[in-house]
Amino acid sequence: MTQQQSGQVMERIEIMLHPRSIAIIGASARLQYGGRFLNNLLEAKYSGSIFPINPRHEELMGVRCYPDVSSLPEVPDLAAIIVPFESTMTVLEECARKGVKTGVIITAGFAEKGTDERKAAQEALCDFTRRTGMRLCGPNCLGIANVKDRIWSCSAALPDIQTIAAGNIALVCQSGASAFGPFLARARDRGLDFSYIISTGNEVDLDTSDFIRYCIHRPEVKSIVAYFEAIRDSDKFRTVAKEALALGKPIVAIKIGRSSAGQRAALSHTASMTGSDQAYDALFKQTGVIRLDDWDEVLDAASLLVKVPPFHKKSIGIVAHSGGVASLLADKCEQIVEVPPPSDSTRQGLEAILKGRGSSANPADITWHAFEEELVDILNLMLNEDAFGGVILGTAGSDNQAKRIIGAAEKTQKPLAMLWTGSEREVKGLKLLQSSQVPVFYSVETLGKAIKASLYYHRIREYYAVEDGYRKATASLPAKFDIPKRKGPLGLMESLELLSSFGIDVPKGGLAHSVEEAENLADSIGYPVVMKVDSPDLPHKTELGLVKTGLHSRVEVENAFREMWERTSTSEASTSIRGILIQEMVEGGIEVIMGIKKDPQLGQVLLFGLGGIFTEVLKDFSLRVCPVNEFDVQEMIHEIKGFKILEGFRGKAPADIAALEKTLLNLSSLAMATKEQITELDINPLIVLPQNKGAMAVDALIVSRQS
Amino acid sequence: MTQQQSGQVMERIEIMLHPRSIAIIGASARLQYGGRFLNNLLEAKYSGSIFPINPRHEELMGVRCYPDVSSLPEVPDLAAIIVPFESTMTVLEECARKGVKTGVIITAGFAEKGTDERKAAQEALCDFTRRTGMRLCGPNCLGIANVKDRIWSCSAALPDIQTIAAGNIALVCQSGASAFGPFLARARDRGLDFSYIISTGNEVDLDTSDFIRYCIHRPEVKSIVAYFEAIRDSDKFRTVAKEALALGKPIVAIKIGRSSAGQRAALSHTASMTGSDQAYDALFKQTGVIRLDDWDEVLDAASLLVKVPPFHKKSIGIVAHSGGVASLLADKCEQIVEVPPPSDSTRQGLEAILKGRGSSANPADITWHAFEEELVDILNLMLNEDAFGGVILGTAGSDNQAKRIIGAAEKTQKPLAMLWTGSEREVKGLKLLQSSQVPVFYSVETLGKAIKASLYYHRIREYYAVEDGYRKATASLPAKFDIPKRKGPLGLMESLELLSSFGIDVPKGGLAHSVEEAENLADSIGYPVVMKVDSPDLPHKTELGLVKTGLHSRVEVENAFREMWERTSTSEASTSIRGILIQEMVEGGIEVIMGIKKDPQLGQVLLFGLGGIFTEVLKDFSLRVCPVNEFDVQEMIHEIKGFKILEGFRGKAPADIAALEKTLLNLSSLAMATKEQITELDINPLIVLPQNKGAMAVDALIVSRQS
Repeated sequence: MTQQQSGQVMERIEIMLHPRSIAIIGASARLQYGGRFLNNLLEAKYSGSIFPINPRHEELMGVRCYPDVSSLPEVPDLAAIIVPFESTMTVLEECARKGVKTGVIITAGFAEKGTDERKAAQEALCDFTRRTGMRLCGPNCLGIANVKDRIWSCSAALPDIQTIAAGNIALVCQSGASAFGPFLARARDRGLDFSYIISTGNEVDLDTSDFIRYCIHRPEVKSIVAYFEAIRDSDKFRTVAKEALALGKPIVAIKIGRSSAGQRAALSHTASMTGSDQAYDALFKQTGVIRLDDWDEVLDAASLLVKVPPFHKKSIGIVAHSGGVASLLADKCEQIVEVPPPSDSTRQGLEAILKGRGSSANPADITWHAFEEELVDILNLMLNEDAFGGVILGTAGSDNQAKRIIGAAEKTQKPLAMLWTGSEREVKGLKLLQSSQVPVFYSVETLGKAIKASLYYHRIREYYAVEDGYRKATASLPAKFDIPKRKGPLGLMESLELLSSFGIDVPKGGLAHSVEEAENLADSIGYPVVMKVDSPDLPHKTELGLVKTGLHSRVEVENAFREMWERTSTSEASTSIRGILIQEMVEGGIEVIMGIKKDPQLGQVLLFGLGGIFTEVLKDFSLRVCPVNEFDVQEMIHEIKGFKILEGFRGKAPADIAALEKTLLNLSSLAMATKEQITELDINPLIVLPQNKGAMAVDALIVSRQS
Repeated sequence: MTQQQSGQVMERIEIMLHPRSIAIIGASARLQYGGRFLNNLLEAKYSGSIFPINPRHEELMGVRCYPDVSSLPEVPDLAAIIVPFESTMTVLEECARKGVKTGVIITAGFAEKGTDERKAAQEALCDFTRRTGMRLCGPNCLGIANVKDRIWSCSAALPDIQTIAAGNIALVCQSGASAFGPFLARARDRGLDFSYIISTGNEVDLDTSDFIRYCIHRPEVKSIVAYFEAIRDSDKFRTVAKEALALGKPIVAIKIGRSSAGQRAALSHTASMTGSDQAYDALFKQTGVIRLDDWDEVLDAASLLVKVPPFHKKSIGIVAHSGGVASLLADKCEQIVEVPPPSDSTRQGLEAILKGRGSSANPADITWHAFEEELVDILNLMLNEDAFGGVILGTAGSDNQAKRIIGAAEKTQKPLAMLWTGSEREVKGLKLLQSSQVPVFYSVETLGKAIKASLYYHRIREYYAVEDGYRKATASLPAKFDIPKRKGPLGLMESLELLSSFGIDVPKGGLAHSVEEAENLADSIGYPVVMKVDSPDLPHKTELGLVKTGLHSRVEVENAFREMWERTSTSEASTSIRGILIQEMVEGGIEVIMGIKKDPQLGQVLLFGLGGIFTEVLKDFSLRVCPVNEFDVQEMIHEIKGFKILEGFRGKAPADIAALEKTLLNLSSLAMATKEQITELDINPLIVLPQNKGAMAVDALIVSRQS
């Protein structure tokens, strides 16, 4: 999308969310989709013009009704399409003729039905929007709401619409029933309010990324809560997510598809192609999008991110009115951050208040002092403690207690969050806290996840905040080589040359076709050497005895050459043999693997792990979507459990992590440069030598696609 | 504890929870601990006699007050002690003289303070209870409540005590503020009610296990919710937990101490010694205790366990009013169970209702039909589907909807649970559901954990339900050997003999002290052989080159013997050398490790893993507290991630799992039989041969303790 196109999209979304007039095609008297749309606008006291369209009514809910779009007295800013499936295209064409610029299609029954006919009907909508320039939200959505301006262009059942307050979180959600259902209900339980609620449905035109981009540029929006079934255009999403990161507007999201049943469900009901769940995880990590699994988790994490500054160090002070609550908090927090002891002066300050009751340690058990005036002093002591990067208070009490907490929060630059230990139905104390800048949690599990999210978010943000706001992801290197134009695996020598041309170190080596060549190569490389039969048709060389290691002399090389040559010349693959690779023997490092796979939805995905059992049985590997940058590769290397092996395990020297990072970056460049030519690439193994000694790809399998 | 002693304890707890009269020593007019205790009894309309004791009052809250225990007109069934720390022992002695049989000590300031003086004061309470036979709850607790009979013997602040209903869950909690605070508040939010609420404090006499035992034998109690900071007597706990398992009364628990901060907090505030958290995890797994991390999680899991029958197969049908909710549920459920497609007839039944809307797959998206009469038919179709072991419904609606759901649940033998997608503050629909037999969840995360808990609970219960209700844990074998009476490591040969005497297979072998002996041994064992210097002072033989493998002839044995003998005779450890072990070489198996460690709180703990990097770096090992039974060792073997390696990885033959199980059982017997003599034992490696070929301990380190 060009900047100009993006600008047009933003203008149209602006109109959609701030229409001066709305036509409701399919408005009805009964409170079903069409009736609810009209009713919501009326109940919320929409101040623009409403044009219900229904040929069977003169008037609906006291509003004059029109038989069709063409008879409208003006061109409405927004058309809501709530007609039977079969009539959708007809009314859209009418809208286009009238000059309507934006539409929300509530009507369902398109690609989500899974039949070819319905997929074609959805394709026709795509054609329509490209052809006419009318921008669409949906189909199969529930509509959109601009909460601040009380414009509820949606078919959701919202009996208490008048009491819904506006806030600073924008909700962008592929599931309409989730947006106006659990997301809205749970947010209101928490005293969290939305600025916009946008359900995107099948996203035939405008998609989640478009709406997120619009929202992050609105000053009233501080954070995005999103729900994805699939991301159709991952490049656009990536760009938008990074814009959000640069603007400091966190995106907290649920993404369906962790399981095959979830993927099936997502597929069937929005008809979107889903990519590998692990690749989505990677993409979110790379873009600072916080992925969680539950409405409550997402909302609570957004609340922490929006309401308080980042933890300036990874340590927390804990205070509660009960030892039991304090312990529960300490247990959870210490799985994520440090829970260090307070300094002597803080301790003495607490002791002066507690006078021997409870505990002045961390966690602090302040007993009934939590309910008294001195809570303010206690919180100030904890918040001023240098050892603590933030403070968590676990208690529940009166409005007076709430005011003391809010007062302490207002005076600090550190995050102060609260675990509410009372009823979630409580009003006393809780309502005040919920409407304050103190993020309130109800369960230690959710609190723990939110703290983790906050630390990660601010860490990635710091990385991206250097200089001009962005450090560029590694650019693609120009390719100086030809990738063979045949389908299937490359030879080993050409694979290594390809890696080498992208700056990935490989051992010295060359192909020999005779004993003499072999001996001369070995002499020039230096002993010991490794010998490998190089044939694209024999990828599993080791199993076939076509690899010999630790050859120390011309004689050994000669014997090995003769034996291997004989063995392969009788095999079926003999015609494809390129020669025997004589290779420098790389010793004393740690073997890892890295590779590139193509995800159907997200493109080239980079894999890193320790290989063998670690990768295949223990699933201890990390992924990132290409291209990657330094932050990504550092995270990739550190997030595998086996990282400790690279750090130096049982007296082994630490591995050259810098070389490993560089190799991953180069491999990502290769992936981007060759994405049209290469379907799969595995370096197995890459030997990571001790610090400052580098890393070398000693074997590789590269599969070229038919050109 | 003998059965008689246990019987006496049960009688006394019966009195404590059903007292006909209660003395409140330290009753006061102000609503602090003493005043609240009196006030709670009055507000809850306690029907027995109340004797406030306070020399400064004639009357308190309209009740006649006494100056001291001795002036009471009768012997109260229960004495509440709410006096300053210093007076505790004086009033207790007075109670004993009066003949009071049970007491609840609210007073705090004992061992939880951590000073020697206060620990001694707590020790004095122990002496007192042993000496006088008066049974105590506390100190440092908040009291106990018999909710059914409205006897609230507690100092908690409970403004709405009259509205608290009685239910079938007993709450036994080491933290008083947690019991009467978040546990009670969150249970009430959920419409879950307690039969008893017992806060045990420092447990100077009666402990959590005693109260749990009492509760599980009460017919009105269906489940226990517990909160532990430490388990003082793990044998007693184990016995009680297994009784609960046999009775089918699930224990769902929080145990503090996952982190060191949590452990510190637990230590400081109940002054209990904590064991290793992982060992507690193991103990809970072995006894069917469901361990979770949060009040909400614990309560929701208890609700599922109490309200519905077990899932008769590991598969679930999912139905929701929205595709988004359906997907979210499917994603979470499929991480735990299967989410299989429905049969054609179910699908057709659903289609007949949905008529092309939504989805008749699994998960089923039933759109607005969730809010109509036909929900009953839909639920019946799902519940009658053979492919589903149970059904989860995600929606939120009116009282009418709730009645339909409850009706369907009443007619099925399968579990039907609900994910409530509305506000947690809702009354409409939700209150009816909460008071029904349908367990209601509010988050998919918690639902997932509860389903997992239920599956595990019923699996372990099935194991224990054979024949006479219990399969005996493997008995200790009689020891036929002498463990050396010196402190420190045993020699390798004696270690292997010790293992062998407990039925653990070891390779053929013997100690040689001369070349001739070595050669003769090797001949009789058969080649190849392994040779190892056997010295308790040289546990790291391999690193020192004191192990030779794959020796194929007398000549190789001779050379090896000479070389090893020379190398060791010059070393410092030469005096402790027992000889050179000539051992059968075991080939072609998978190496694992197993061992025994002593946990300070829970005793002998059995460890199993794949050894090396798997155990040390990836922490992929499993633990169980000894003794273990077949269920335990099967779980131990299956729960490590590396289990797949044992099943046969990359064409390798599957390992002899049965032999592995037997070895673990035998090692547990050894641990129990030698717990006084052995502090540590490691078999490293045990070689597990292919199926039916057995498993052999080829090396071991056993450390004897000073006798």
